[in-house]
Amino acid sequence: MSVSPLPFTVSIDEATGGGGAFADHYVKYFRDVRDIFEDATAAANVDGDSVAYEVYSNERTKHEGALIFGTSVLMPGLIGEEFMMTRGHVHEIVDRAEVYYCLSGEGVMLMEDDAGRTIAEPLAPGNAVYVPGRWIHRSVNTGDRPLVTLFCFASDAGQDYSIIDRSNGMASQVVVDAGGGWRLRENPLYVPRYQADRSS
Amino acid sequence: MSVSPLPFTVSIDEATGGGGAFADHYVKYFRDVRDIFEDATAAANVDGDSVAYEVYSNERTKHEGALIFGTSVLMPGLIGEEFMMTRGHVHEIVDRAEVYYCLSGEGVMLMEDDAGRTIAEPLAPGNAVYVPGRWIHRSVNTGDRPLVTLFCFASDAGQDYSIIDRSNGMASQVVVDAGGGWRLRENPLYVPRYQADRSS
Repeated sequence: MSVSPLPFTVSIDEATGGGGAFADHYVKYFRDVRDIFEDATAAANVDGDSVAYEVYSNERTKHEGALIFGTSVLMPGLIGEEFMMTRGHVHEIVDRAEVYYCLSGEGVMLMEDDAGRTIAEPLAPGNAVYVPGRWIHRSVNTGDRPLVTLFCFASDAGQDYSIIDRSNGMASQVVVDAGGGWRLRENPLYVPRYQADRSS
Repeated sequence: MSVSPLPFTVSIDEATGGGGAFADHYVKYFRDVRDIFEDATAAANVDGDSVAYEVYSNERTKHEGALIFGTSVLMPGLIGEEFMMTRGHVHEIVDRAEVYYCLSGEGVMLMEDDAGRTIAEPLAPGNAVYVPGRWIHRSVNTGDRPLVTLFCFASDAGQDYSIIDRSNGMASQVVVDAGGGWRLRENPLYVPRYQADRSS
């Protein structure tokens, strides 16, 4: 926690998610997320050096009362029947909400609460999705171009990226539909959260 | 503070700022903001029933850890030499930040700190402006169409709308330039914040 920054502007390219004034940037390669897909054989055939997603943000706004905003750029792809997705997280301070605004591409914000209840909200340009505190969430790219979203959350929120692993995935998966669209199906490997936490 | 809402989506019309799932909406008519413009004669000639700006949001997300997001739609206009602007505010919990993302139109986010220091950041589609806590801020429409911005702030932040009035306006004004663009000039009526607060 350093001194509060001055006001600043980021000019965001809606197609790429990039912007000159984003000070922080990380890339997740496919090798970093290979384990999150159910179809291990299909996942093994994907080039580990290919980009799965990128995140741009400004960590310098980590202050009491501050917000972190940035962009997430999720590549398209099918791994078996599952669409490309982010690892997903819940906030370490669990009541912290997050807002996502879709800039380009198409996809789904897949959300799940403690009881394993699933809500899938469509992401398309102009859609703002409100993710209340306590809801695990991940982005899924159901289109054929990068899915670019603008996100905003309280800078003290933190991320727990292991919560989904502990349940062998989320309760529902976003998979390709016979017609070429997407549908939800139950994840056969899912271990309900209260059981997963009891055994760990 | 009621129970936390479920996740939800608002499909935002970037040109109008409207969206079906915005539950809350208010309109500021010109009569409500006539007093914020320096040129009283010019302001007196504007129809009080004309819309100055509209705000869409979802107040149902007022929870600990929650965020409020919505859109601000500021009409164009010149009142004397000043461009149409919002009343402006600082957050009641002063360290609370706010992020604005410009969806359409063009303008300026005019910001000022306790010491009267001014920063004016351009608003144009794709620009995200970070307003740190403690910075008074107002939107100014320097274009000829509505200025539509998406905003996001912590739901406990609150708004102090009187802080600018107490200083007879902000230290700087956004006025029309000879070339038709905009420039900043000092507000001759401005009373520095520490003086204004001492005399009140």
